Amino acid sequence: MSSERLIYLALGGAGEIGMNTYVYGWGAPGKERLILADVGVTFPDMDSSPGVDIIFADIEWLAERADRIEGIFITHAHEDHVGAVGHLWDRLKAPVYARAFTGHHARRKIEEYGHDPETVNIVAPWPEQIEVGPFKVGFAPISHSIPESSALIIDTPGGRIVHTGDFKLDATPIVGEPFDEAFWADIGKGGVHALVCDSTNVFSPKPGRSEATVGPEIVKLVENAPGMVVATTFASNVARVKTLAEAGEAAGRSICLLGRAMRRMIEASVLTGVVTDFPKTISPEEAEDIPRQNLMLLVTGSQGERRAASAALSRGKYLGLELAEGDTFLFSSKTIPGNEKGVIRVMNALSEKGVDVVDDGTDIYHVSGHANRPDLDRMHKLIDPKMVVPMHGEHRHLREHAKLAETNGAASVVAVNGSMVDLTGDAPKIVEYIEAGRTYLDGSVQIGALDGIVRNRLRMAMNGHVIVSVIMEDDELVGEPWVDLMGLPETGSSNAPLQDVLEEDLSQLIGRASRTTRADDDDLEDDIRKAVRKSADDEIGKKPEVTVVISRLA
Amino acid sequence: MSSERLIYLALGGAGEIGMNTYVYGWGAPGKERLILADVGVTFPDMDSSPGVDIIFADIEWLAERADRIEGIFITHAHEDHVGAVGHLWDRLKAPVYARAFTGHHARRKIEEYGHDPETVNIVAPWPEQIEVGPFKVGFAPISHSIPESSALIIDTPGGRIVHTGDFKLDATPIVGEPFDEAFWADIGKGGVHALVCDSTNVFSPKPGRSEATVGPEIVKLVENAPGMVVATTFASNVARVKTLAEAGEAAGRSICLLGRAMRRMIEASVLTGVVTDFPKTISPEEAEDIPRQNLMLLVTGSQGERRAASAALSRGKYLGLELAEGDTFLFSSKTIPGNEKGVIRVMNALSEKGVDVVDDGTDIYHVSGHANRPDLDRMHKLIDPKMVVPMHGEHRHLREHAKLAETNGAASVVAVNGSMVDLTGDAPKIVEYIEAGRTYLDGSVQIGALDGIVRNRLRMAMNGHVIVSVIMEDDELVGEPWVDLMGLPETGSSNAPLQDVLEEDLSQLIGRASRTTRADDDDLEDDIRKAVRKSADDEIGKKPEVTVVISRLA
Repeated sequence: MSSERLIYLALGGAGEIGMNTYVYGWGAPGKERLILADVGVTFPDMDSSPGVDIIFADIEWLAERADRIEGIFITHAHEDHVGAVGHLWDRLKAPVYARAFTGHHARRKIEEYGHDPETVNIVAPWPEQIEVGPFKVGFAPISHSIPESSALIIDTPGGRIVHTGDFKLDATPIVGEPFDEAFWADIGKGGVHALVCDSTNVFSPKPGRSEATVGPEIVKLVENAPGMVVATTFASNVARVKTLAEAGEAAGRSICLLGRAMRRMIEASVLTGVVTDFPKTISPEEAEDIPRQNLMLLVTGSQGERRAASAALSRGKYLGLELAEGDTFLFSSKTIPGNEKGVIRVMNALSEKGVDVVDDGTDIYHVSGHANRPDLDRMHKLIDPKMVVPMHGEHRHLREHAKLAETNGAASVVAVNGSMVDLTGDAPKIVEYIEAGRTYLDGSVQIGALDGIVRNRLRMAMNGHVIVSVIMEDDELVGEPWVDLMGLPETGSSNAPLQDVLEEDLSQLIGRASRTTRADDDDLEDDIRKAVRKSADDEIGKKPEVTVVISRLA
Repeated sequence: MSSERLIYLALGGAGEIGMNTYVYGWGAPGKERLILADVGVTFPDMDSSPGVDIIFADIEWLAERADRIEGIFITHAHEDHVGAVGHLWDRLKAPVYARAFTGHHARRKIEEYGHDPETVNIVAPWPEQIEVGPFKVGFAPISHSIPESSALIIDTPGGRIVHTGDFKLDATPIVGEPFDEAFWADIGKGGVHALVCDSTNVFSPKPGRSEATVGPEIVKLVENAPGMVVATTFASNVARVKTLAEAGEAAGRSICLLGRAMRRMIEASVLTGVVTDFPKTISPEEAEDIPRQNLMLLVTGSQGERRAASAALSRGKYLGLELAEGDTFLFSSKTIPGNEKGVIRVMNALSEKGVDVVDDGTDIYHVSGHANRPDLDRMHKLIDPKMVVPMHGEHRHLREHAKLAETNGAASVVAVNGSMVDLTGDAPKIVEYIEAGRTYLDGSVQIGALDGIVRNRLRMAMNGHVIVSVIMEDDELVGEPWVDLMGLPETGSSNAPLQDVLEEDLSQLIGRASRTTRADDDDLEDDIRKAVRKSADDEIGKKPEVTVVISRLA
C-alpha cells in the first residue's frame, strides 16, 4: 500500500477563473485510477483569441490515460464547469455523473455531439455515493448561484477529500438547499484529508450576503418604477430570476422572459423539479398588449453580449417590444472583468432612449455566489482538514487562500494548472509538471492555443496583410508583380497609391536580383517580403504581414 | 446684434470619456469666429481598432473653417486634452494658449511634428485674459490630478461661459492651487451664461476626498512593508508621485523613478516651477546597491500596459532591479474600464514572484481627480449659471448631469459629439448635427474610422484569410489554382489538408465554369470566393476572407 499515492492535478481552473477541470488519482505512480471533477469552458476575447468560439483545457494528458478514467463528476451546471463535456467526451469516453438539473444540461451537450445522453448518470444527493474504482463519490448540496450545486465528497484509500466546487454560505438561498453548518461539521467529523476549495472571493473582506437580502430591494425598485421594468441577470441564477419575477408579480406586473438561455434555464428548473412555483409568464406577443407600467421583462445579456436580449433592446425593437423614456433597466449582476466595455455600450444605448439604468454599483441588487474571506475561514474551521488546496482562482487568489489556510493550521500549496500534487502525506507536495494548455474550438475544429493559427490572425489584425503575386518563366519575371492590400491604407507619405509604390519597388527588386535568387523560391520570397516591409514602413509607418505567391511557368 | 449667436459644439468628449475637443463660436450663423478648448486623444483597443496607434476627433468640419479659428486653449496636460495638438495642428494653424506646465507638453508635441513650438503661448493664470476675436479667455486654476489644471473663463458678447475642464473640489491638493469657493463665487457674481461642466463622476454619490487624505495611509503602508516597495500611479499625477516619494523618504527609503513618462513628468514639474521640493531620487544603477527594505520604486504602468515598468518588473529583471518574495507592490490608481485584464495580468505575475499586491479595491490609497455628484451640485450653486451643458462623459453621465442641473434650476441639454448647440437664449438648443467621427493614427498615416481599413483587419482576425492565385491563358486555367492560408487550421473534417481540398475544389470549379465566366475577372473571382467560403465552411466551420489574384498571360 505504501507505494500507492493520492494525486490532484488541475488541467484548468487553477491560475485562472474559468475552464475548471480537475483530476484526482489513486494508485501506484503512473498507474493511478483517475476521476475528473468538472470539465468546463472559458471564453475567447479579441485581445488573445479572435475568431475562436470557445476555449477548454488541453486534455492531451488525460486522453492518453483514458483507459484509467473511472468517471466524470460535474458539480454544477455553469458553463465553466460543464461547458466542455460535449466537446471533449469523445476523447474520454467515461461515464458522467451529476445531479438532475446539472445532468439535464450535460445530456443536452453530449447529445449535440451525437453521443448517447444516457452516458450521463443522474445521481441523488448525499448520502448516496457512487463507487468507481478506488473512489466513493457523493454529491453534497451546497449553496451557490445555480440550482443543485454540489460539493464532491470523495472517499479514497488515502482519506476523504472535500472538493467544494463553487459555493457560498447561504442559509436562505431562495432556490435549493440552505447551507447547513451542522451537515458540514458532520462531513468533517471523521477527519478530512484535503479540502480543495473555491478561492474566487478570498479578497472580499466582509461576510457574504444571502440571496434573500436582494428580494426586498428589488420589490421597492419595481414598485416605484413609473414605466416598463427590464431586469437582466445570469439566466442560470434561477433563484435571482425567480426573485425578480416575484418582485414583478408583487407589483402587479406581467412577467415576460426574453432570450433563449433565460427560457431554457427556467424550463430546465421546472422540468427537473428544482423550481415548482415560478410565477406565470407571458409571451412577447402577449406582452405587446400590456400597458408598460404593468410589464416586467427578464432578459439575457447581463454581460453586454452583442447578440443577447439586453443589447437588442438597447438598440431598438426586439420581438415587438421597445423601450422608451421613463422605463427602468436593472442590471442585477456583476460585470466580469473584460466585459466592462460591452456593458457600458448597452448602458449608454439605453440612456440614449431615455431609459434609467440601475446598475450593481450600489451593491444592493446583486450578491455574489462565492464565499468571501470570512466564509472561507468558516469553511476551513467547519471541515478542519489536514490540508487545503486552493482552486478556482487566479494565482493571486490561490496564494492568498493558501496563506489563509496556513493561518488556520492547515498545510497548503499554490498549485496552478499542470502542477501535479501528491496529497498522500501530511502536506501537499508538487511532484511533477505536465503540459497544461488551452484548446480552442475554432468553427468546427479544435486547435491548440499555441499552434500559431491565432497568432497569425492577431498579426494580420495589428499589421495588415500584403499579398504579392509574381509569375516567373525561365527565371525571368513575366509581366509585373501584382500586389493586393488587406487592412492597410491606400496611400502613404508619397501620396501615390501604396499598391503602385510596392509593385514598382518589387519590379525593380526582381530586375536587380541575381539569377540564383530568381531561380530560388525561398530566396526570392524572402527578398520580396523584406522589400515590401521596408517600403511599407517608409510609406505608412507599418510593417505588414506578407504572403508571396510565386508561380513558375513550365 | 440679434442675428449673432453663441454656439457650442463638441467634436470629441461628449458621449465618451476621452478625446476632448470642444468648439465655441460667436457671430452670424455660418460665420462665427471660433475657438477650440482642448484637442485630446483616446486610446485604441483590439475589439474595435487593432493596430491603430492613437485616436483623435475627426476635425474635418473645423479644418474647413480654419480661417475662422482664433485660438486653441488647452485646459491641462492630460493626453485626452492635449494629446492631439501635434497631430492636428497642421490643419488648424491657430495659436495655442496654455499655462506653463501644460504649454511645456504642448510645445514638445508641436515640435515633434516639425512645427514651431513658439506657436504655443504661455499664459499666466486669471485674472490675465487673452483677447482673440470676440472672445476674452482666462485660465482659472482649478484642482484636478495634474498640475496647473484650469477652467476657461470665456467672456463673449453673449455672456460669460465657464468651461470647467476636468476638476474636483480639493482644498488641499498637495501640488497646485487649492479649490477656492470664494474665488468661484466671485467668478459667478456678474452672472454666468453657461457652465460647461465635467460629468465623469456624476454617479459617485459621496463628496470627493482630498488628495491630502491619501498620504498618511501610504506612509503607514510603506513603514510596515518588510521588503522593497514599488508603487505605480499615473505619471501625470504629480501630487500623488510626490506623496508617494515623501512617504518613502519618511520611511527612510531611497526613491527611484522608473519609466520614461514618470521621469519626464517630474522633470517638467521642476522645470516649470510647479514642484520645488521633490525628494531626492537615485538612478536604477544606484538602486541596485541599496538594501531592498531601504528602497522604494515609483513606476509607470498603473493600467497594466505591457511595455511599462510595472509589467516589465512583473515579468523579471528590469534595469537591474528584480522583485522578490516579501516585496510590496501598490497600485495607487484606479483601473480604467477596458484595462482590467492587463492590470490583472500584472497582478498575477507579481503574485507568482511572491510579491504582495495592494490594489485600489480598498479605496484608501487613491482618490479620483473628478468632482462627485455632491461636488457638481456645489459647483452649480457657486457659479449659479443660466444653463449647464454637461461634457466629459458618456451619454449616461451627460444625461444624469443634465437632470441634476435642472434640479438646480438651470436649463440644460444632452449634447453629444456633433450636436451644435445654440447657447444664445435662455436655454441651450441643438440647432444642427454635423458629422463627428474619429480619426485613427495608423503608423504614420491618418485614416478615417469608417474607411473600412480597420474593418478588414477585424475580419481577417475573426475569419482568417485565404489567398487564391490562378493563372489563365486564352481563358483556360494554366496549371492548378494555388491556395495559401493565413490564420486558419491546416486540416478540417475530411482530414485532408485544407489547402489541398480548396485547390482541388477550385480546379473543378474552374473546369466546369462557362467560357464567359472564365473570360470575366469579376465573375471568376466571385465564383472562386463563394466556392472557397463554402468549402471552408464544410471543412472547418468558418467562412474566411478571400483574396483572389487572377493573372492572365497575354
